[in-house]
Amino acid sequence: MGEQGRARRGGRRRRQDADTAPAAPRWGRVRRTLAPTVMFDADEVEAIHDTSMRILEELGIELMSERACDVLAATGATVDRDSLTVRMDRGLVADLVAKAPDTFALTPRNPERRVHLGGTDMVATLVAGPPAVHDAVNGRRTSNMADYENFIRLAHSFDAIHMIGNQVAAPMELPAETRHLDCYRANLTLSDRAYHCTAIGRDRALDGIAMMALARGLDGAEAMIGDPGVTTIISVNSPRRFDGEMAEGLMTMAEYGQGIAVTPFTLMGAMTPVTLPAALAQQNAEALFGIALAQAVRPGTPCLYGAFTSNVDMKSGAPAFGTPENARANIASGQLARRYALPYRATPSNASNAADAQAVWETEMSLWGCMLGGANMLYHAAGWLEGGLCASYEKLVLDVEMLQHLYAFCEPTPVTAETLGFDAIARVPTGGHFFGDAHTMERYTDAFYTPMLSDWRNHETWAADGALTATQRATAIWQKTLAEYDQPPMDPAAAEAVDAYVARRKGEITG
Amino acid sequence: MGEQGRARRGGRRRRQDADTAPAAPRWGRVRRTLAPTVMFDADEVEAIHDTSMRILEELGIELMSERACDVLAATGATVDRDSLTVRMDRGLVADLVAKAPDTFALTPRNPERRVHLGGTDMVATLVAGPPAVHDAVNGRRTSNMADYENFIRLAHSFDAIHMIGNQVAAPMELPAETRHLDCYRANLTLSDRAYHCTAIGRDRALDGIAMMALARGLDGAEAMIGDPGVTTIISVNSPRRFDGEMAEGLMTMAEYGQGIAVTPFTLMGAMTPVTLPAALAQQNAEALFGIALAQAVRPGTPCLYGAFTSNVDMKSGAPAFGTPENARANIASGQLARRYALPYRATPSNASNAADAQAVWETEMSLWGCMLGGANMLYHAAGWLEGGLCASYEKLVLDVEMLQHLYAFCEPTPVTAETLGFDAIARVPTGGHFFGDAHTMERYTDAFYTPMLSDWRNHETWAADGALTATQRATAIWQKTLAEYDQPPMDPAAAEAVDAYVARRKGEITG
Repeated sequence: MGEQGRARRGGRRRRQDADTAPAAPRWGRVRRTLAPTVMFDADEVEAIHDTSMRILEELGIELMSERACDVLAATGATVDRDSLTVRMDRGLVADLVAKAPDTFALTPRNPERRVHLGGTDMVATLVAGPPAVHDAVNGRRTSNMADYENFIRLAHSFDAIHMIGNQVAAPMELPAETRHLDCYRANLTLSDRAYHCTAIGRDRALDGIAMMALARGLDGAEAMIGDPGVTTIISVNSPRRFDGEMAEGLMTMAEYGQGIAVTPFTLMGAMTPVTLPAALAQQNAEALFGIALAQAVRPGTPCLYGAFTSNVDMKSGAPAFGTPENARANIASGQLARRYALPYRATPSNASNAADAQAVWETEMSLWGCMLGGANMLYHAAGWLEGGLCASYEKLVLDVEMLQHLYAFCEPTPVTAETLGFDAIARVPTGGHFFGDAHTMERYTDAFYTPMLSDWRNHETWAADGALTATQRATAIWQKTLAEYDQPPMDPAAAEAVDAYVARRKGEITG
Repeated sequence: MGEQGRARRGGRRRRQDADTAPAAPRWGRVRRTLAPTVMFDADEVEAIHDTSMRILEELGIELMSERACDVLAATGATVDRDSLTVRMDRGLVADLVAKAPDTFALTPRNPERRVHLGGTDMVATLVAGPPAVHDAVNGRRTSNMADYENFIRLAHSFDAIHMIGNQVAAPMELPAETRHLDCYRANLTLSDRAYHCTAIGRDRALDGIAMMALARGLDGAEAMIGDPGVTTIISVNSPRRFDGEMAEGLMTMAEYGQGIAVTPFTLMGAMTPVTLPAALAQQNAEALFGIALAQAVRPGTPCLYGAFTSNVDMKSGAPAFGTPENARANIASGQLARRYALPYRATPSNASNAADAQAVWETEMSLWGCMLGGANMLYHAAGWLEGGLCASYEKLVLDVEMLQHLYAFCEPTPVTAETLGFDAIARVPTGGHFFGDAHTMERYTDAFYTPMLSDWRNHETWAADGALTATQRATAIWQKTLAEYDQPPMDPAAAEAVDAYVARRKGEITG
């Protein structure tokens, strides 16, 4: 019949949906045990490196900020003032990039939530930036502050989500020029996790830094230099252009020694050539350029090598995520990040319009690519749907389950006389079972990963209980998680200081 | 807003569901480019090996066939005739296992469908054995011959499925003692793929061999010795017991030099200890024992090292598949198979009751484990649901899409001056795009994997077209595929010979 005949598929197990979520804290710090996967040999990595150096030396980067051009000119870069094109020779690039640390930590207001970026550490963040949100109860809608706050509560409740991204869902009903302040305040009061700042321009970045400093009880943003608490994503207007506001944001973060992930968002066929080596060469040039600028502002600024290379559908131009090519790019980019001894940021993603099977296989393709590539930061790791245009409550729950599966996979498998279990094997007769053996009884409670959302009941029991799909079961989990959410306590003086800062800045901005 | 802002998510792309399925033949032969993943260091592999050798030397295997015991006794194994327990020392095991080839091919009636098992080759088979079937139109039902035939037609239509498993879905309405004949005939007439024989007893195996020989126009089963056309799965009644009928089937296959995958189906916590090293040691002992028996019957018999180690839910005893532990086992088992220079069979699987998100994340976990472990045969790779108790039409389509994603991922990424594309990068201005560049135009048609089932249209277009999930879209694909199915031509004399064989054997059996 099948190979499963002898195992029990009984109905006597506990329910596996809302009753058990969320799991007890277990995933506070995740480290990979497998060595990163090698896709390119050393010569191939050097060929990509060489091409990226030619891009920086011969073609240059358009840097749309006079102030940033001045900073790089002072290091010896060649600046064409008419076109704002900066060219750097490979020696200069290497010298600057070498000043970046190979690992760093971000300390939020709760030091127990410190995250480590580098080495074998793997940190996951909430999705960032979608203009829409969706859940199965209320449908799809423009994102708003109530949803924003709910997502922060969910991120805070799931141990598998280590950081908050930049504006999980944009609160579109709030004024564009001050909504970052409302977001930072929600991050700080509804959670105690580290977060990403908006780095479009100097002020938004500075506000994010200053507010984290206040929440930590520090005396001003300068006090976080050397002990960063926030980071940001610097996007590149690929190919080969850094917008002025992004450059300002980058320089501001660097001035205060906060984390910077320079991430060219490059869809092959659109922002880069269709071939992966070319895309990687261009990505590499752009990422290293931004990191070099950060080091020119403040040597030692913590930076992440950011990679987000996927492809478009060549028949329509539509972006595609979690593709085979994206998975390969995630692995190969890790080889490049390690060549420069930089922590590595990558992204599990998908282009599905629903929290369905496609959303999962695309997410798994990119997620495995991230993990095998040795990514230290999995950005957008929880809640991303529709190619990043929608934050999904159900997808967030699915993502937490997928992350936890991968974290459990990454745990070590010690080989010892005890785990080799010869005596246990000797004790159980041929054709017997190990359920009641002492070796089993001593270990069974935590021998295996216990899923949050997977349902392993037999078909009859599952069907009698409503025949709910995983996506349907996810609804009950986020609902229960929100219902049981505990706001983390905050020092009243720090909370007051944060509130006062927001009030003052709103006054200044709307003046 | 998000990083996707600049890419086009237009509605002008072609529809991506039924109109384009199935893809043109592309996946006839799949080879991995990545080196297999190393999970255990050499000492750890040796510790597992050593424990498995102690199991064979000190504990032994219960071999419930006097004839098989005789075969092994003749090689020097120690046989306790009362308990039918066979003990073998490690030197004998090594000598016998070393006679198995490190790679072999199976030739079906269409030589273009030959499959290669070993090295970097990766071969996927249809699910095998479920007693139930499900599709979204007709619901869940006991499996039957009409469904059996449909699944063979689907396997034949999708290039990503290379082989037919053993009784994709059991035709439960047919007499149990002759249904294998109907299944073999369907395999041979509705498809030209190689298939797995039922190896429960001598006759079922022999029928499968003889019928493939007839379909190939050969003069009897003996003519396939040295050029195998079929294979089988030998399950083990773990722990440490080979049932008599399975031993007979194994010996029959070996007599005729056909392929044998010896696969202990071991759920940690039930059929093995809860610890992975112990499970691997036991699996290793059992698999090598079966392979040694095959070599004792006929040296050089093509064998696969079969691994199917997952775990149970320790709270209920329910089997679990696609778990983190299963993924690790799939990788580690590859290290063991390579230690003995044996082709490696593993299984992507899941325990979900629906072709939903859970089915996909569990399948992806196990599938990545298989691929990273260097599995040569992915058994049950298309259509498996409910822990193998149900064959699903929609899941088959999802699986083909997941397999194709992985196959595309496995393709090489050549690094050359042309793929590094410096000139193309130089041609496109900063902030521009590569859509119309010559480098793109020369390559765009096959630059990226074109999915069969993924829908990359924007949300508005997708919603206006019915807002179908991937699982819902899969229904249209299997329906269209069946509607367009072309039965492969067969030599009339061979077809007649197969029919006559079935008639004669049915007469003999039901006598």
